[in-house]
Amino acid sequence: MSTSNRQFRLAARPTGLPDSETWSMTDEPIGDPGEGEVAVQVLYLSLDPAMRAWLDEGPSYIPAVEVGAVMRAIGVGRVLDSKDESFAEGDVVTGTFGIQEYAVMPARTLQKVDSSVEPLTVHLNTLGIPGMTAYFGLLDVGRPQEGDTVVVSGAAGAVGATAGQIAKLKGCRAVGIAGGAEKCALLTEAYGYDAAIDYKSDNVRHALREQCPDGIDVFFDNVGGPILEAALARLDRGARVVLCGAVSQYNSGAMEGPRNYMSLLINRASMTGFVIFDYADRYPDATRDIRGWLADGRLVSREDVVEGIETFPETLNMLFTGANTGKLVLKVAEP
Amino acid sequence: MSTSNRQFRLAARPTGLPDSETWSMTDEPIGDPGEGEVAVQVLYLSLDPAMRAWLDEGPSYIPAVEVGAVMRAIGVGRVLDSKDESFAEGDVVTGTFGIQEYAVMPARTLQKVDSSVEPLTVHLNTLGIPGMTAYFGLLDVGRPQEGDTVVVSGAAGAVGATAGQIAKLKGCRAVGIAGGAEKCALLTEAYGYDAAIDYKSDNVRHALREQCPDGIDVFFDNVGGPILEAALARLDRGARVVLCGAVSQYNSGAMEGPRNYMSLLINRASMTGFVIFDYADRYPDATRDIRGWLADGRLVSREDVVEGIETFPETLNMLFTGANTGKLVLKVAEP
Repeated sequence: MSTSNRQFRLAARPTGLPDSETWSMTDEPIGDPGEGEVAVQVLYLSLDPAMRAWLDEGPSYIPAVEVGAVMRAIGVGRVLDSKDESFAEGDVVTGTFGIQEYAVMPARTLQKVDSSVEPLTVHLNTLGIPGMTAYFGLLDVGRPQEGDTVVVSGAAGAVGATAGQIAKLKGCRAVGIAGGAEKCALLTEAYGYDAAIDYKSDNVRHALREQCPDGIDVFFDNVGGPILEAALARLDRGARVVLCGAVSQYNSGAMEGPRNYMSLLINRASMTGFVIFDYADRYPDATRDIRGWLADGRLVSREDVVEGIETFPETLNMLFTGANTGKLVLKVAEP
Repeated sequence: MSTSNRQFRLAARPTGLPDSETWSMTDEPIGDPGEGEVAVQVLYLSLDPAMRAWLDEGPSYIPAVEVGAVMRAIGVGRVLDSKDESFAEGDVVTGTFGIQEYAVMPARTLQKVDSSVEPLTVHLNTLGIPGMTAYFGLLDVGRPQEGDTVVVSGAAGAVGATAGQIAKLKGCRAVGIAGGAEKCALLTEAYGYDAAIDYKSDNVRHALREQCPDGIDVFFDNVGGPILEAALARLDRGARVVLCGAVSQYNSGAMEGPRNYMSLLINRASMTGFVIFDYADRYPDATRDIRGWLADGRLVSREDVVEGIETFPETLNMLFTGANTGKLVLKVAEP
């Protein structure tokens, strides 16, 4: 095993955006794997907006990361040493390794992935949790019908980019909301959105009126705040609002609720939350569909890869300043 | 026809609670009914929280009352003269008569009701729109299962009282939230709620923790504001929030949204609005069930009757100060 293993641990719970006080970098070499355990070299780590929520105490869908613990993160790695018959040296696996270079994991917490997929970062994007989230959130919770107008916020993010593409594959009109001209160009050029709304320069309410003349049938929300309110103001009868996240609110201290939530009443609409882990037994169905679409070239998987575990604090914050385009991935080692 | 017909008209749109500037009392005798019309003497008028929303411009489920128009109101009346074969003098009918003593109405807008029902005010309560609202809102939107915990806000109001009783009839635990000891006593003594929470003296969050140890499965919301937030904080997995109204917000100027709406995500829950008119073709089913329960004594219908059309402005405001107990009805003439 390596004699060095750099890690990022939660040093103090942040208020607002995580900063230099939030993290401490430690170096604690891993031991050898015991019976039923596997030692993994981490190659890529997934950085996601939900990580901000994991830093706060209080009720959530998953326990908060404890102060002093290695920051929770899902990654792709290569098996170095296995004391479990399910895995062999050289296997490529995903697991919740944490922000570190090496991890010893119980074998039952790992999944083998197809090492021929290029690049391996796709396993953290369209074939990973973001892809599953887009698939089940849109199709199961949003239930779009052919011809529906589907609006996605955070549309250039990992989940949003895939949600918009799946909406198009299902015969819907897809309208994406993102920040900045570059991301908006991506929406229509790379992801096939019919229209893009730049919340940094457009009046979102006005733009939604223009782009959704018959109202919104499905609103897939990753951001909350004023954009959620703008979408609520434009719902069609019987619309479904899918609550996937609220990234605009995670660093704001006090959450704000949508003041016009009674639009749900006026429009006989619903707003429904979901947690992707509940769909775990159906991941194989989604994976089969998504692999097919990737193979056909009908779905694109774009990852924004930043190199070096030491960049973790600044790289994570790209999610909250909107600096990344495509799924944000931290590269820890050469695959 | 009578030579006098007192009416209340909207004089100016209120901000906040309606006051003396809001209404003008006029006296404009009705003419004779034309072909297909019916002249009605108004006996009782239904006063409802939703009326406040009808005074505001802007998108809603029903157009705002126009300034200068007779205030919209549903009532029970007796046919004085009919120029339509569907109705005869003496028939008891319901219709949207407005706040006035007499009305000439197109026959197709009236429904004959059973004049043997005692008192006739039941047609404005459990057999009227509030009863239909409770029935379909709870059963269709809330979908309670036997053993579920159902929490109702505005529980001593017309809709809330019936919603709680139907929850009990369906084998649920029913917890009602209302303001003041008198209303809370009604909840458990007259309406059969298992528990009552007095939002004026209890800490609602704490009381919900105590009364709903396994969380809330269905929250039937008539009030919005901090009570909605308290209920969201106590949802069980897969809970259904039924958006029926937001009476706490109607006079507040700026609506507030539930800051903890992401509890819907954490708990895989939904919040769904509905408008009762969509269920019109199923009113007969509900009416049959509710009549059966009334006849069996398994459902009570309590109306709070205030006499005199001239009291309309103050009587209406009882809804917003919480002064009524039971369905608020304005008595316009002896039946």
